[in-house]
Amino acid sequence: MNVVVGVDAGGSKTLAVAANGGERVGQAERGPANATSLGVESAVGTILEAVSEAARGCQVDAVCVGAAGASRRGVAYPIRQALVKAYPAARVRIVDDAAIALRAAVPDGPGVVVVAGTGSVGYAEDAQGEGHRAGGLGWLIGDEGSGYAIGLAALREAAKTLDGRGQAHALLALVREHVPAKDREELLSSVYARSGAHLETARIAALAEGALRLAGEGDGCANDIVERAALDLSALAVCAARAAGLAQDAPRVVLAGGLLRAETPLVQLVRRHIESDLRGAAAAPLECEPVEGALALARR
Amino acid sequence: MNVVVGVDAGGSKTLAVAANGGERVGQAERGPANATSLGVESAVGTILEAVSEAARGCQVDAVCVGAAGASRRGVAYPIRQALVKAYPAARVRIVDDAAIALRAAVPDGPGVVVVAGTGSVGYAEDAQGEGHRAGGLGWLIGDEGSGYAIGLAALREAAKTLDGRGQAHALLALVREHVPAKDREELLSSVYARSGAHLETARIAALAEGALRLAGEGDGCANDIVERAALDLSALAVCAARAAGLAQDAPRVVLAGGLLRAETPLVQLVRRHIESDLRGAAAAPLECEPVEGALALARR
Repeated sequence: MNVVVGVDAGGSKTLAVAANGGERVGQAERGPANATSLGVESAVGTILEAVSEAARGCQVDAVCVGAAGASRRGVAYPIRQALVKAYPAARVRIVDDAAIALRAAVPDGPGVVVVAGTGSVGYAEDAQGEGHRAGGLGWLIGDEGSGYAIGLAALREAAKTLDGRGQAHALLALVREHVPAKDREELLSSVYARSGAHLETARIAALAEGALRLAGEGDGCANDIVERAALDLSALAVCAARAAGLAQDAPRVVLAGGLLRAETPLVQLVRRHIESDLRGAAAAPLECEPVEGALALARR
Repeated sequence: MNVVVGVDAGGSKTLAVAANGGERVGQAERGPANATSLGVESAVGTILEAVSEAARGCQVDAVCVGAAGASRRGVAYPIRQALVKAYPAARVRIVDDAAIALRAAVPDGPGVVVVAGTGSVGYAEDAQGEGHRAGGLGWLIGDEGSGYAIGLAALREAAKTLDGRGQAHALLALVREHVPAKDREELLSSVYARSGAHLETARIAALAEGALRLAGEGDGCANDIVERAALDLSALAVCAARAAGLAQDAPRVVLAGGLLRAETPLVQLVRRHIESDLRGAAAAPLECEPVEGALALARR
């Protein structure tokens, strides 16, 4: 049997699906494969494993990987090389995770997507098929509004509360569910390892879900963080749409990534900001899995 | 000859001075020794080297190290153990870098200090000699107003400008003097290494000096960053003073660290905020080197 394989390689998990025609014949899930936080070697290894397990020994005709950070040549190239070597007969396509999310919702033509999972990025394709990106600059200097940004803001407010500069008691309780933080010393040991390593981006991003829940329950500090994130995420979509020349075209804006899946207050705020900034735009959460977009691109 | 050795181990450099009575008889300078960003093993090695070179083979009667992060037992303990092993006959004292800055300016009694170098911390000692700390939570979740925080803010504004979301052209030019950033791809390669490592905290903090200069020249974006830093730094001093019960005592507030040395607009803003929040307080930059405080504590 011959298959095509689509891969969604993100900051919290990696999903590979093998299909024969329209039918899924294999799938595999692995841990995060974010080259920007974990290194490209680690991302390549995770992706290869997931593809191999999903393909289950079938002949692979095509692979499309949507990977966080793959808009960078230095990330896309090693992933491509590893796949070309493992599957010399296959067509190999490496795109950024935003491109597969867009193509999962809008199979063809221009469109806009904002992805907020562990990281964040705005992405739009214009009528000529050219991609335009806003953000996606990684955990240290970008990822505004992402799960990482929300989690880090929660952690910082908790830390300020612990040392007497803040009143974010609910956020401190949330942080304590995730990492030991009895006192300042213990929090610092949880965040900074002796070797100079530090708390992983995925573990910081894991705080976001709880912060969103607290905001929904009316906690003021959590709410401030979520409002900031909504402004940042809508700015990513609006900037990408403008760069692609779609701002006046009442574009469809896809909201994707783990943070924008359900009808949360964050999604409502992001939608409201986008629809107010882009006349006639309609923003809605992605209703299928992003890996469907990777399969669609693999089939092209 | 017998000596006492004082060490100032900070995020940008390490200075050790050996003295015999009141006279300096040796000194050594090394690179950064910040356990929180570089790991405690690296910090210990740097400190040991500096002490050994400064002592020049003399009998060491006492050593006092003021080290960034040494308010953490997990940082202070390994530094202490290494020094006790190397100098079994010496009295060894490990304190936080803020404590030596305070004792360099105020030899005895209660006082307040705010340190802003690569990192930041507020520290006050009450009338009973007990220390009270605000901030100092390291580059990932703390260090508000520090050189690192200013440098990172400059880097983030530059990145936004590069991808079309900002207008911080002067900050982008500044960043380009320090790291290759022709385009988005090159900036990302400068910030994130393939292995998952990232631009060092000291290199990010090195952007602060240029950002302060741009703010002084009237650049709006740089000015916003510096105003934010001034608010954050004064909050550290005020919180530490309150925690030590000194808020009503017209305390003397020492401004220390590489960022608060000269009469810059940042220093003027920090002083104004502190003097407005703490009635009767007088804030002034430290006029000698912090290592003098380490020597004073070593002599005690």
